[in-house]
Amino acid sequence: MSKNVVIVGGGFAGISAAQKLASSDVNITIIDKTNHHLFQPLLYQVATAALSPGDIAMPIRAIFRRQKNVEVVLGEVTNIDKEQQSVQLKNGHSYPFDYLILAPGAQYNYFGHDEWEKHAPGLKSISDALDIRERILLSLEQAEQIADPKERQPYLTYVVIGGGPTGVEMAGSIAEIAKRSMMRDFRNIKPDETKIYLVEAADGILNAFEEPLSKKGQKTLEDMGVEVLLNTPVKDIRKNGVQIEGRFIETPNIVWGAGVVASPLIKRLEVETDRIGRAVVNPDLSIGDHSNIFVAGDAAHAKDKDGNPLPGLAPVALQQGKYLGELIKNELKGRSRKDFEYVDKGTMATIGRAKAVADVRGFKFSGFFAWILWGLIHIFFLIGFRNRFRVFAEWIWHYMTFKRGVRLIAKKDEES
Amino acid sequence: MSKNVVIVGGGFAGISAAQKLASSDVNITIIDKTNHHLFQPLLYQVATAALSPGDIAMPIRAIFRRQKNVEVVLGEVTNIDKEQQSVQLKNGHSYPFDYLILAPGAQYNYFGHDEWEKHAPGLKSISDALDIRERILLSLEQAEQIADPKERQPYLTYVVIGGGPTGVEMAGSIAEIAKRSMMRDFRNIKPDETKIYLVEAADGILNAFEEPLSKKGQKTLEDMGVEVLLNTPVKDIRKNGVQIEGRFIETPNIVWGAGVVASPLIKRLEVETDRIGRAVVNPDLSIGDHSNIFVAGDAAHAKDKDGNPLPGLAPVALQQGKYLGELIKNELKGRSRKDFEYVDKGTMATIGRAKAVADVRGFKFSGFFAWILWGLIHIFFLIGFRNRFRVFAEWIWHYMTFKRGVRLIAKKDEES
Repeated sequence: MSKNVVIVGGGFAGISAAQKLASSDVNITIIDKTNHHLFQPLLYQVATAALSPGDIAMPIRAIFRRQKNVEVVLGEVTNIDKEQQSVQLKNGHSYPFDYLILAPGAQYNYFGHDEWEKHAPGLKSISDALDIRERILLSLEQAEQIADPKERQPYLTYVVIGGGPTGVEMAGSIAEIAKRSMMRDFRNIKPDETKIYLVEAADGILNAFEEPLSKKGQKTLEDMGVEVLLNTPVKDIRKNGVQIEGRFIETPNIVWGAGVVASPLIKRLEVETDRIGRAVVNPDLSIGDHSNIFVAGDAAHAKDKDGNPLPGLAPVALQQGKYLGELIKNELKGRSRKDFEYVDKGTMATIGRAKAVADVRGFKFSGFFAWILWGLIHIFFLIGFRNRFRVFAEWIWHYMTFKRGVRLIAKKDEES
Repeated sequence: MSKNVVIVGGGFAGISAAQKLASSDVNITIIDKTNHHLFQPLLYQVATAALSPGDIAMPIRAIFRRQKNVEVVLGEVTNIDKEQQSVQLKNGHSYPFDYLILAPGAQYNYFGHDEWEKHAPGLKSISDALDIRERILLSLEQAEQIADPKERQPYLTYVVIGGGPTGVEMAGSIAEIAKRSMMRDFRNIKPDETKIYLVEAADGILNAFEEPLSKKGQKTLEDMGVEVLLNTPVKDIRKNGVQIEGRFIETPNIVWGAGVVASPLIKRLEVETDRIGRAVVNPDLSIGDHSNIFVAGDAAHAKDKDGNPLPGLAPVALQQGKYLGELIKNELKGRSRKDFEYVDKGTMATIGRAKAVADVRGFKFSGFFAWILWGLIHIFFLIGFRNRFRVFAEWIWHYMTFKRGVRLIAKKDEES
């Protein structure tokens, strides 16, 4: 009888594992809380109205339309029975497995201040991105109607918390919107009234990069008009602003991008976890003495060959998913397992139009070429040809025109 | 001093009036509850996941980027002072006018049963369309997980209420999705399990058309698998279905498209209104003895040269807006007014892929040619070149592939 492979999470790890098993005699079930695979690296482009949700997300069903051994289930996993080998969903259904791949991803961590979340949304899902987009657009509309420049200042102020790639990309995008493209549509607001702060607790931004690129990234942001506040932990976040040491920045526009934790589902596994809740995995990504239960992607704490933990990046998740698909395929043929080995193909972050930093196998560069590379590689990763083509066209279009296409406020309750 | 022209509503009437005044020495203020002009005739395509909201909507600010005499205000009008000549917004701001054009549009009418609205959303705004889209997608996901065909039947049942163009387009689109394109992604549901009902209280659908086309439209829908229930008033709508004479149709998928009423703003005018709340206007679209206050579009009850009231259609609104822009422009130059005269360029309704009915100046036709004409004319009306090009490309793409691009469920609370 065919073995059951259950995959929890339709991100890079889950999707690539299932694709590797296309020609194997297994029954695959992919369970996800949403109905779509999301290309998270471009989510900030949805938040800043450059792309539509449909450009960076694809229904998981559509990805596996032709792969007949895959069943897709929309649902939330509430429990994992390691001994009985089954996962339970919130709706009561349960799915038995011979192999289980857990790739539920990560979520933002508010360091014990969950009440901050509603004032400073993170950027993990499409609804987060649309929420942030609407806040920014509504804030501009409000500023436009206030005659007194001092009174409207808060509505033209933006605070991005966290100097990782997402925070840097958000701050850079907001700077472009605020300083140039969108502002041309407003009659009363002047571009130089906009204030953008990137708040980081550590002593530098883009810490995944080595010194020259990290500094270069900061310089680029500052040239674009972003004020980078280093060594600045956030003390409080309220509806109307952010409290930092000795100062309260008044604004309704706060975006959270500081620190992630693994999905709470990992706790249900009852295995060793690291500081940010990721499951510490064996060299073959299995957990404890359960050789048929794996954790991959942002929720896994795996190590590189020097013993350093791997970062939560798309390429890591993608390689882990492929590795697990291959492992199961081989094991069914009676072959033995090899350990997972991450191949670092480089790290990149985009900062703005024609501005990026890249570190490819020790070769560091920045500026226009790094940006083009970033674009090509990210668009190449997009799953589904049609999306890929559209996003590329949109991207070039924005480069040429500075226009932001998708500035719609869909909410019914615009006014309070 | 330049005269103030205040326009309430950024639909076809409001936008076209402002555009006609581009070269006049007037200060134009456009006030709308949303930040975008919406191409309503294609809204059903967003509801059925063929187009993204960004494809059929454009920020009003962006439309008037280059027209410097226009100011755009996001806000809700709460009062109109005809004597003092000013409009008041919910946020307390007020705008004085020399000329006022009221084009606030229409909304769905639940015939005194406002409690039906939450179970049977209408299709007037982007958030309505996204709401309906998510209901349909979630319902399919639920059906996929229910093993018993009898138990899953309600989730594969759709009821569209109202046999006007919107209802017919929705029913036709759902039939296409359900019978063909989307179903290929599901493993358990069979296309012939889907049941689609179009419920109409009158004795025919598409009553704006004459007999042969109306009958032809019904035949086309039936061939596509839609069950058309004529002479069937709705008795009750509940969360889990629709009660009609002698029968309860169980389903969570209910779309309302039966009967509209003018925006409640018209009541504030204190003028004569018709049965559906539209302001009865003078031959120059002004109201009562206020020659500087006009009502246009779906909220106006104007008459054609035979004395019949004009229908609430995009071409009527567009021609009225242009007429009013022209009227004000001429009046400022000291020229006298002419009456508004509607030029009927034809009526069309699309039913499905390569299926439509059209009546152009008495020349009636249906099928593929009517459909192409419908597409060309509707896309031609789209304001903003880039959207137009994209929508056309999407449309052709769907024709060739039967694929639905934008099937995303963005809600956070997928399960209850």
